[in-house]
Amino acid sequence: MPGTITLITDFGLEDGHVGAMKGVIRSIAPEATIVDISHFVPPQDIGKAAYVLFTAYPYYPAGTVHVVVVDPGVGTERQAIALQTSVAYFVAPDNGVLSYVLDREGVEAVVQLANPKYWHHPVSDVFHGRDIFGPVGAHLAKGVPLQSLGEPLDPAALVTFSLPRPERRVDGSIIAQVVVIDSFGNLTANLPADWLASSPTWEIEVAGQRIRGLQRTFGDVAKNQLMAFIDSEGFLAIAVRNGNAARELGIKEGDQVLLRPY
Amino acid sequence: MPGTITLITDFGLEDGHVGAMKGVIRSIAPEATIVDISHFVPPQDIGKAAYVLFTAYPYYPAGTVHVVVVDPGVGTERQAIALQTSVAYFVAPDNGVLSYVLDREGVEAVVQLANPKYWHHPVSDVFHGRDIFGPVGAHLAKGVPLQSLGEPLDPAALVTFSLPRPERRVDGSIIAQVVVIDSFGNLTANLPADWLASSPTWEIEVAGQRIRGLQRTFGDVAKNQLMAFIDSEGFLAIAVRNGNAARELGIKEGDQVLLRPY
Amino acid sequence: MPGTITLITDFGLEDGHVGAMKGVIRSIAPEATIVDISHFVPPQDIGKAAYVLFTAYPYYPAGTVHVVVVDPGVGTERQAIALQTSVAYFVAPDNGVLSYVLDREGVEAVVQLANPKYWHHPVSDVFHGRDIFGPVGAHLAKGVPLQSLGEPLDPAALVTFSLPRPERRVDGSIIAQVVVIDSFGNLTANLPADWLASSPTWEIEVAGQRIRGLQRTFGDVAKNQLMAFIDSEGFLAIAVRNGNAARELGIKEGDQVLLRPY
Repeated sequence: MPGTITLITDFGLEDGHVGAMKGVIRSIAPEATIVDISHFVPPQDIGKAAYVLFTAYPYYPAGTVHVVVVDPGVGTERQAIALQTSVAYFVAPDNGVLSYVLDREGVEAVVQLANPKYWHHPVSDVFHGRDIFGPVGAHLAKGVPLQSLGEPLDPAALVTFSLPRPERRVDGSIIAQVVVIDSFGNLTANLPADWLASSPTWEIEVAGQRIRGLQRTFGDVAKNQLMAFIDSEGFLAIAVRNGNAARELGIKEGDQVLLRPY
Repeated sequence: MPGTITLITDFGLEDGHVGAMKGVIRSIAPEATIVDISHFVPPQDIGKAAYVLFTAYPYYPAGTVHVVVVDPGVGTERQAIALQTSVAYFVAPDNGVLSYVLDREGVEAVVQLANPKYWHHPVSDVFHGRDIFGPVGAHLAKGVPLQSLGEPLDPAALVTFSLPRPERRVDGSIIAQVVVIDSFGNLTANLPADWLASSPTWEIEVAGQRIRGLQRTFGDVAKNQLMAFIDSEGFLAIAVRNGNAARELGIKEGDQVLLRPY
Repeated sequence: MPGTITLITDFGLEDGHVGAMKGVIRSIAPEATIVDISHFVPPQDIGKAAYVLFTAYPYYPAGTVHVVVVDPGVGTERQAIALQTSVAYFVAPDNGVLSYVLDREGVEAVVQLANPKYWHHPVSDVFHGRDIFGPVGAHLAKGVPLQSLGEPLDPAALVTFSLPRPERRVDGSIIAQVVVIDSFGNLTANLPADWLASSPTWEIEVAGQRIRGLQRTFGDVAKNQLMAFIDSEGFLAIAVRNGNAARELGIKEGDQVLLRPY
């Protein structure tokens, strides 16, 4: 079966960058299918790119190659890597963009991209998406073994950003953090739904606002009302129905969410 | 021949939602081709989504599966449906987004999506695009019969919004309405070109402005000039060449357009 | 091997236009792969479309069909053309959008699109992307010979815009021009890197600012610092790291860049 290559970048779609990258991939692996996940990651926002990947990669067929190019350090000493888990391949700069993957999946192998045989030449110092990450992803999709791409790395030495953990206090309350804000202004906290099993009802406090109880879906509250719910990834989320919670509450990533059983 | 699945959503492309949906589809129907029609429908704008579908679906091969997810009522009692016409399949919430299709095509069969065998599990209450509409579309593209997806519905009971009709008055003039404004600010009225056969020349009045005669194309008028023409779907349209007619005239959907023969 | 058809338009992705065009292409050439290069060319910006094409087409497999629809003159007397080079096919209005291609590639053949057998009917006067350029591209990808599409044209008679050339002065300095500004505000000048071989070091002056020396990549300067470098196409470029050089310098296309050896 032909392989799948997904793309996540911060290139936007106004210029020819994504088109050039797809051309290189297609020239190497014409039978593979290229799937755009997002090219609208905010420029250089490694955390957002990591989260976009986190919410999309689990749904792809085994063996899919995910290429992520949000790469403020392009052309510097930062490493370029290819990583194999039990479910997929990931090709990216070693800058933390695979933090969620590394947190959730076991690493079967990881290499530093060092074999120019699998690159597009000449290699530009400012566009490794076209000249290194894209072509390496295409070769993986064609069946080139990971080990051919470069020297093995110690997974423990990869760059990751710390994923803040929620904390349950002795009084039964929970402190969590906002970890991502989506393009509609909905807030996702780092709190898996199963943490809430210890009480049938919770009061959620964020930015000085208190929300009593969780809703199942948006239609359960009136328009413009603040609500808490379990999002599509199974985490606590906060939204304003038909509104923008982040803007209306003045919330940013890292802000605290406090939950109390009642 | 492998099937085609088209997607229309209001998810935008900044988050991972569309990527997740495509992953589920690709896992079920790896041989099908996924075509993005639009993910930039304004949030929850069912009318605009219906019109985008109307302007695109007629051009696809027979048997194409069109998946439309603009779904303010996700997780509520609104039904999810799959509909078969003589030319295509449509998978969508039953919220009016298929109004133009129902107006133009005969329904061969329609079912309420009720068979969880064809869904992705667990089903999130806030993301039926990934967990119900996408996978059902993928199974249809693979050849699963519509009847397997759920219980038959009466087409007459489906939710539709009323499509306003133009009216010809005894003096020969016509009253029409602006039904959609495109992203360039061009206005489309609900007036098929053949209504204009009764006179060789027409004066069009909209927002207090009068336009004498129809042009064939944009290049027929000077820059910044208001013009009327027949759009690519065969309906009366009004534009400002190199400008934004909706903004300049202060026009919104539903506003009246008056035509007088002269 | 199935063919590749790439698309560059200024249609945006909010309406159904691109979806309709893809439907027509897919109905004609279901085995071909459609690749979106960009649908976000600024409306009617022929120069930008030409540059987007220039930065993407060289990376595609031989025989790829590039369809470019930025077409302010749709429906007027401007010609529609299909052009064959040693590497690819190009289908576009004859309005200058192929200027870079014509500058760089030899023309093997070019025809005026005049054979309605390869169009979609009825042909709208305002949407040749769907009714002429798209279907012609699809037929080319299926193997229809260029000569079947219409009458041969003299390549020398095609519309091109003048590509300004850099100039080396007797004192060794170079005068170049900003030819394109990308969506991040980076400036590209019409100066190939090999022009800089005559001196080991250069001072670059643009908008009254002087930059001493070229950097290899963004990470070589501090944030918010103005820098010059060789871009991914091998041309002189100017950027503000993590900033928008065009906006901060008040630069527009056509502005002068002066280089002095030191």
